[in-house]
Amino acid sequence: MLTIVVDAMGGDHAPACVIEGTVQALQESGNRFEIILVGQSDKVEPLLAGYDLTALNMRFLHAPEVITMEDIPATAVKTKQNSSLVKGLQLCKTKQADAFVSAGNTGAQMAASLFVLGRLPGVLRPTIYAYFPRLTEGLTNIVDVGANVDCKPENLVQFAEMLTIYQRYGAGIERPLTGLLNIGGEEGKGSEVLKQTYRLLKEAASKGTITFLGNIEGHDILKGEATIVVCDGVVGNTILKFGESIPEFLGTLFKHSLEVLLLSGQINKESAALITGMFKSMFEPFDVEQFGGVPFLGVDGISIVGHGRSSSRAIKNMIYMAEHMIEKRVNEHIAEVLSEQ
Amino acid sequence: MLTIVVDAMGGDHAPACVIEGTVQALQESGNRFEIILVGQSDKVEPLLAGYDLTALNMRFLHAPEVITMEDIPATAVKTKQNSSLVKGLQLCKTKQADAFVSAGNTGAQMAASLFVLGRLPGVLRPTIYAYFPRLTEGLTNIVDVGANVDCKPENLVQFAEMLTIYQRYGAGIERPLTGLLNIGGEEGKGSEVLKQTYRLLKEAASKGTITFLGNIEGHDILKGEATIVVCDGVVGNTILKFGESIPEFLGTLFKHSLEVLLLSGQINKESAALITGMFKSMFEPFDVEQFGGVPFLGVDGISIVGHGRSSSRAIKNMIYMAEHMIEKRVNEHIAEVLSEQ
Repeated sequence: MLTIVVDAMGGDHAPACVIEGTVQALQESGNRFEIILVGQSDKVEPLLAGYDLTALNMRFLHAPEVITMEDIPATAVKTKQNSSLVKGLQLCKTKQADAFVSAGNTGAQMAASLFVLGRLPGVLRPTIYAYFPRLTEGLTNIVDVGANVDCKPENLVQFAEMLTIYQRYGAGIERPLTGLLNIGGEEGKGSEVLKQTYRLLKEAASKGTITFLGNIEGHDILKGEATIVVCDGVVGNTILKFGESIPEFLGTLFKHSLEVLLLSGQINKESAALITGMFKSMFEPFDVEQFGGVPFLGVDGISIVGHGRSSSRAIKNMIYMAEHMIEKRVNEHIAEVLSEQ
Repeated sequence: MLTIVVDAMGGDHAPACVIEGTVQALQESGNRFEIILVGQSDKVEPLLAGYDLTALNMRFLHAPEVITMEDIPATAVKTKQNSSLVKGLQLCKTKQADAFVSAGNTGAQMAASLFVLGRLPGVLRPTIYAYFPRLTEGLTNIVDVGANVDCKPENLVQFAEMLTIYQRYGAGIERPLTGLLNIGGEEGKGSEVLKQTYRLLKEAASKGTITFLGNIEGHDILKGEATIVVCDGVVGNTILKFGESIPEFLGTLFKHSLEVLLLSGQINKESAALITGMFKSMFEPFDVEQFGGVPFLGVDGISIVGHGRSSSRAIKNMIYMAEHMIEKRVNEHIAEVLSEQ
């Protein structure tokens, strides 16, 4: 049976939301895996008292320290060795657990994962990707979305290779397609790093570690031809956060426009309610919580990173993602391909 | 009276659309300026035959060559000296005209503008910005949006300074506010270039050439606190093109959702038409054509760059933008501030 560590203290709504999501995962899956919940006992135990723990395959482990969103990642990891984050990852390192899940300070989780778990053989820099909506069936992942800046061409190529492996084995995509995010479609466009990355991606394609579509542009992302969009973390992070702000932005415009129609009597309340429901459902493809979180790809272990504002549903799906990553042996496949280079 | 050169051959719908927009500008403004239309006589003159030219303050100038969207900018500018693009800019250089307007090959227009007009004193690299929608009143400009990649910190600072001058004198914004687009809010975040740019922007703020808000992130763009968003051309170009693709993406989702409601009889045709109108009007803030195009800031002259798919309305507004840039003496102000540094 798999053992998954959940950071009870990670996230804006922790620990309540985290506990709720963990319990949901165990109940829904029929205790398919074991959970070790790590956190401060005075915060977590009173909340656990509200559940029938005998029916849940869950243990609690006290960690006196907490790494907050305000902590500086590299410093916190060194000075707060008794935090839920560091203790939880150590359980993975010592093989007492198979995976770690947190919706806490992303920078600290990346630093701690790298520090405690180390890198998979051959990996230059681990990376984090994101899911993007698309018009066509399937899924689009953008990589990197902020874990790495000042990326070298060889880093970007490895991101594409790791995502190709993830999509192939972890997401069941037979032929993942990589596009290099650039300012124009033709070869020779963009910065020096992008030009060199283009050449290296062509080489990787000729070796068969990726399938390369060439350069793609910002307006190609949502079209969904590429299943993997490669870019530096500054670009990916900006696009991700910009994209996340769109539902709220348009929601505000929508609300205002609907009020005008409603107040002028052009539509009735029933129609307005229908249309509001329709508008909300339009943004379902933007719902990142269906995936919960993403693995920190390239570290020697499973460390699932969630959004700070994760709901219990997101936590539940992050636990499933952890299970999935183990079962599909994504890390073994990454090590196999990258250590050969 | 001002003389504005219009590139009849520039744009996906040229020359018909360009001629139409030019005529509209002259008619609407009561021949407030003189237009020199430059292009291939066999393409343009038959179309001009459809207008009463005696009523319009317009001249036609034959240019036998055309720079197309497929031309490589740097090469085309050198080999096609008799193109509408190069001839038009030369009219500005020789003071026979005050401004140049084109919706053609942007790269070629930038190369030709730099080559023919040169840079304003003190300017390291000219730049192109874009307009972005925002929730609050006023406007947001993103700079650079693809004219410059591998930007150095001092380039990014000058972009902020030039935009500050443009917004202050050209757009009537009393206190333009600059944000540095980054992966986090705190100082010390991001790539080496971004860290150094942060320091230089603080210095510029202390000299008074800009007002600096600090780092902003992707989700801050639409909020509209910053009126100027500074980033490398790779980031700006990607965000711009991604943003441009959103109305179409959501439009497709909307159409599908509305059809479901309509076919199931949940709403009637009249409501559907109203809602469709509402949905379209929601995207009016995304309508870049209201500005037509943008000046290539930093060159020693006025060269207005438009979108390839510009309509006649966009062409008309580009002509007004050219007039505005001259009247507001934006270039004189830029030279004054930047040549002192």
